[in-house]
Amino acid sequence: MTAHVHYELLHTCKQSGARLGRVTTPHGSFETPVFMPVGTKGTVKTMTPEELMALGSEIILGNTYHLYLRPGEGIVGEAGGLHRFMNWPRSILTDSGGFQVFSLKAINKPSEDGVIFRSHIDGSKHLFTPEKSMAIQQTLGSDIVMAFDECTVWPIDKTGARQSLEKTARWLERCVNAWDHDKPQALFGIVQGSTYADLREESARLTTSFDLPGYGIGGLSVGEPAALMNDMLEALMPHMPSHKPRYLMGVGSPDYIADGVLRGVDMFDCVLPTRIARNGRVMTSEGDVTIRNAVYKRDFTPLDPACSCYVCQHYSRAYIRHLLSVDEILGLRLTTWHNLHYLMQLMQSIREAIRNDRFGSFHAEFMALLAEQARSRR
Amino acid sequence: MTAHVHYELLHTCKQSGARLGRVTTPHGSFETPVFMPVGTKGTVKTMTPEELMALGSEIILGNTYHLYLRPGEGIVGEAGGLHRFMNWPRSILTDSGGFQVFSLKAINKPSEDGVIFRSHIDGSKHLFTPEKSMAIQQTLGSDIVMAFDECTVWPIDKTGARQSLEKTARWLERCVNAWDHDKPQALFGIVQGSTYADLREESARLTTSFDLPGYGIGGLSVGEPAALMNDMLEALMPHMPSHKPRYLMGVGSPDYIADGVLRGVDMFDCVLPTRIARNGRVMTSEGDVTIRNAVYKRDFTPLDPACSCYVCQHYSRAYIRHLLSVDEILGLRLTTWHNLHYLMQLMQSIREAIRNDRFGSFHAEFMALLAEQARSRR
Repeated sequence: MTAHVHYELLHTCKQSGARLGRVTTPHGSFETPVFMPVGTKGTVKTMTPEELMALGSEIILGNTYHLYLRPGEGIVGEAGGLHRFMNWPRSILTDSGGFQVFSLKAINKPSEDGVIFRSHIDGSKHLFTPEKSMAIQQTLGSDIVMAFDECTVWPIDKTGARQSLEKTARWLERCVNAWDHDKPQALFGIVQGSTYADLREESARLTTSFDLPGYGIGGLSVGEPAALMNDMLEALMPHMPSHKPRYLMGVGSPDYIADGVLRGVDMFDCVLPTRIARNGRVMTSEGDVTIRNAVYKRDFTPLDPACSCYVCQHYSRAYIRHLLSVDEILGLRLTTWHNLHYLMQLMQSIREAIRNDRFGSFHAEFMALLAEQARSRR
Repeated sequence: MTAHVHYELLHTCKQSGARLGRVTTPHGSFETPVFMPVGTKGTVKTMTPEELMALGSEIILGNTYHLYLRPGEGIVGEAGGLHRFMNWPRSILTDSGGFQVFSLKAINKPSEDGVIFRSHIDGSKHLFTPEKSMAIQQTLGSDIVMAFDECTVWPIDKTGARQSLEKTARWLERCVNAWDHDKPQALFGIVQGSTYADLREESARLTTSFDLPGYGIGGLSVGEPAALMNDMLEALMPHMPSHKPRYLMGVGSPDYIADGVLRGVDMFDCVLPTRIARNGRVMTSEGDVTIRNAVYKRDFTPLDPACSCYVCQHYSRAYIRHLLSVDEILGLRLTTWHNLHYLMQLMQSIREAIRNDRFGSFHAEFMALLAEQARSRR
């Protein structure tokens, strides 16, 4: 199969083994490790595409489940695909919908064929199969398409975890077969196996036996302790091909990102920075700040005194707190902008550290800083 | 008193008598007729200051009542005034709070001293007087400060209207006396008199007897027919000094603006364009469009095919309808942006027509177009 997405390993950090790479898609290229802002319903909440590009975003994520329900992938297709529909000229990765339909626990019905679920909007019944997920994502026209997998909850017993990873592998084969190889899109398989090192290795073997342009790592950051996630990444990575990008799905907190990079992860996504922003929580060099708190009522300093972003250059904590207090949309825009800037800057610092063979020190210092901030908040 | 705001009459349309002028404040200057977007709570809803400036906005309005309640004018003052608090470097006009506290009908208690009202937020009791309104607006630091007046409802009997305009005149004297003449701000008096031509003339005489840098026209566009509003403007204008700007308060629909300009009005404000935008209604060269309607689900044309704005250059009706359907903030941003662009462009066209001595024709053609659009919608 012709690969429409290429990964180039630019440099391996001599101090830590962390990877600096470059991914090229039909809509551009970007350096990794990369953080992908989540545009659930065809928009990264509150932001225009131009603003995202100004922040340095080169790739965003779209959610197949949500776009399938509204507006329906057919309308997106008629618009010329998701890029044109939402005015985003750079790369897009879509998930398979698997994570969402498995999250609808009470109403989904998994079988070998796929998952029957009820829409969270109107309760209508729908069936997602590997073939259906592929068809929807092809219509959406994303650059990177994720395989339809069965994501396990945590904890799950080993038998359940094994069944899930085996089903995921069978579904991957169906995804590959359903795949239209002529479309300028790349299919990524997904490794499962919950928190069992041998199952992760088994899943990696099964998944990478399909020679795909990249691989997702699913079923982590779903409630298990950070140390366990890191153990799994360490067990898994020796079995992942070094010339393909590795995408740790659903991870976006600064500490987890740093931990993932240290263990060879290249791509991350999470709603965290944008979701906590809308709850009035901002990420700063001094730790998270809940800007809604009354203590900031008369605080005329920026969200983060060390930050160079548009928001921190022009607005005070007192103003942003006021906006959030009176439910003004600009408040949500400013906190979102700032949090995305924080994460994009963190990724840039991480890439610089790898380039300069000092990511081991960077990681140690960064984790010590976060621990210190957590202590001082207690 | 030193005037901190100057009006220069640049040109009177030979065809219609409409006025092209220039207002200069401590924060810049702008041509009139001008439309002032409303930034009720220290933000023009959904917009950044930079976006407003990109649309050509030179002056915005702030609401004294709302800012007094939240965050409190003290905090705005500590921030260095409203300009700095909200990052708006150009001109600001604040209303007096009078319109809002009189709108709180059930709970306000007007007296000669002022108005006792209950906050719409927590029911707490407050007293607004002319002196209090002046003090708040001075703390906010707006460039143009409106006198505290008694705005009449419509209809009102002649005795009531007369009492109100006389009280407004007595309060204006108190505003002038309470005024700190050293502050770089200008106080505008307000003409009342409801829909009685002789009372309008009487109020104009009383109000302009204070030699103020500008005058508001209040108590119109409060439910009376358009023809009656126009009659009042015609009765009033001969008694307004030609070397001072005239601000028709709360008027922002395209037809009323055109009618006002024809009768010599220089300044307008209204929440209309931004409010209807958030309800999914956009102003276009083909008339208003309710973009939420299902008929636009697959309409991949711009909001207004004749529009050159950022929104119309990059997004389809189908996309914006989708955003509004799924409650995405970007949808509200795009409709607001477009509507403000529409009004700013209308004002520019109006100024060009006056400059070229053809505003009479412009007005006639514009009103005919609106009438035609209303007919075809029936």
